[in-house]
Amino acid sequence: MKIIIPSVVIMICILLVAFSSHSAKDNQVLRHVVLFKFKDGTSAEQIKSVEDAFRALPGKIKQVKDFEWGVNVSPENLAQGYTHCFFVTFSTQKDRDEYLPHPAHKEFGVLLKPYLDKVLVVDYWSKR
Amino acid sequence: MKIIIPSVVIMICILLVAFSSHSAKDNQVLRHVVLFKFKDGTSAEQIKSVEDAFRALPGKIKQVKDFEWGVNVSPENLAQGYTHCFFVTFSTQKDRDEYLPHPAHKEFGVLLKPYLDKVLVVDYWSKR
Repeated sequence: MKIIIPSVVIMICILLVAFSSHSAKDNQVLRHVVLFKFKDGTSAEQIKSVEDAFRALPGKIKQVKDFEWGVNVSPENLAQGYTHCFFVTFSTQKDRDEYLPHPAHKEFGVLLKPYLDKVLVVDYWSKR
Repeated sequence: MKIIIPSVVIMICILLVAFSSHSAKDNQVLRHVVLFKFKDGTSAEQIKSVEDAFRALPGKIKQVKDFEWGVNVSPENLAQGYTHCFFVTFSTQKDRDEYLPHPAHKEFGVLLKPYLDKVLVVDYWSKR
């Protein structure tokens, strides 16, 4: 018994490590890249309300597998005015197709619209 | 001794799981998002030569921490002609700053230039 319990724990640990490595490296996922440029005059508070509303979407839409975002810091001056990148990951095309017309996503669009100058969206299946 | 060895193995496994989870979820990384639109008339072979050359960069530039890419499949018609997304990850700003003028990156730029209609680049520190 003194040997069996540690052995089971070891097996569970090995499986966890193996699974974590597999899911991070081998599976293709569908990336949804969204860039925003806000209208001149949009205040810091208004921009933050948009950021917070986008960040809340993964908690409201179960089809979102992963999410991150950030503000442009490129020194190359090739961003064409876009300041914000939201990077949403889906496991399947079906999940992406259900996300787009989801009521919470539509509601976000209503909040965003008054402040939006332009938007760019590219989706891709991740390859190495 | 029968207890000590399994205990050490368990500790190592727990540390591996903790580290793997930490590096995947908590650390901010610097994302470098690159979009290309190729000139009309660029052949499939020419586009593939650019894809292959970009895919070869992580093997030539040690500062690249992670890399993926893909071709636009968004149904939203908001891609503004961009067809390709290359998604490069760095651990530090210094790594990104060394990547940009790296000879292998410059050489890629020479290969790309004849086929490139437009390019968009956004870098961001990943946040949740």
